[in-house]
Amino acid sequence: MKLKQLALISLGLMAATASFAQQKAEDLIKTRQGAYKVISWNVGRIKANVDGQFNKDEVLKAATAIQALANAGLGALYAPGTEKGVGYHETAAKPEIFDPNNKKIGEVAGNFGKEANELAKVAATGNKAAVKVQLGKLQQTCKACHDDFRQEDHHH
Amino acid sequence: MKLKQLALISLGLMAATASFAQQKAEDLIKTRQGAYKVISWNVGRIKANVDGQFNKDEVLKAATAIQALANAGLGALYAPGTEKGVGYHETAAKPEIFDPNNKKIGEVAGNFGKEANELAKVAATGNKAAVKVQLGKLQQTCKACHDDFRQEDHHH
Repeated sequence: MKLKQLALISLGLMAATASFAQQKAEDLIKTRQGAYKVISWNVGRIKANVDGQFNKDEVLKAATAIQALANAGLGALYAPGTEKGVGYHETAAKPEIFDPNNKKIGEVAGNFGKEANELAKVAATGNKAAVKVQLGKLQQTCKACHDDFRQEDHHH
Repeated sequence: MKLKQLALISLGLMAATASFAQQKAEDLIKTRQGAYKVISWNVGRIKANVDGQFNKDEVLKAATAIQALANAGLGALYAPGTEKGVGYHETAAKPEIFDPNNKKIGEVAGNFGKEANELAKVAATGNKAAVKVQLGKLQQTCKACHDDFRQEDHHH
């Protein structure tokens, strides 16, 4: 086999590897965007319940979904290579999320999980007023993370 | 106020209402597409665990997320007005999903929920072989629904 042939094969493999990595990154970005969309849907459902007719069953289902996603390990969706790029849309993640020395990430993620666990507990009681208070606490953790780590001009 | 003015205001309101309805439909379609993306991510994680190194904690998190989404009431995301349209991409839902007389929908959705509940139970035991078997049963319910209700040329 001639050197030129080897070089062409090597280039081909490099391109295939790069393409695979890009596809994988796109998939991770789509998944995190999808996860937040589903979380947002469930937050909206609980909001509608505490602001109007309260259906304990629907609230519990929604709170359980939020809790499961908050504890699913969404951090894995921010793997190296996903700092920039398009999933369903351009990522709104700020570069700070990918800084391994940034301790704030673990803090906001931990708070989200903590308040989501508490919301699921409160939802199980069926107490509308308590769910309203706890939903507010959960939403504060969403906002805290968005304030620090989401580019406001990018998300939609 | 002249008739022409009234007619123009009326047209404007109709356009605003249609635009709101379209935005709402787009949001519901995005949410269901996001939900399946997240489910698919979690199925993939469990698959990787049963085919390789088994991490009980990761499997349980993933199974819990699938279970919560399977029981979240995803049917609400197929509200009237969402039969066609673009969420993150063109919907792949077949018209049959929206037929209120179609009993197959409740059946496939019920099977998905049943196997997802069982998968979460089995995942809690940490038995790799049992998780593998149960994951296969869950995937059969995904396939059954896709075969009947998903347009294969549309999804991506």
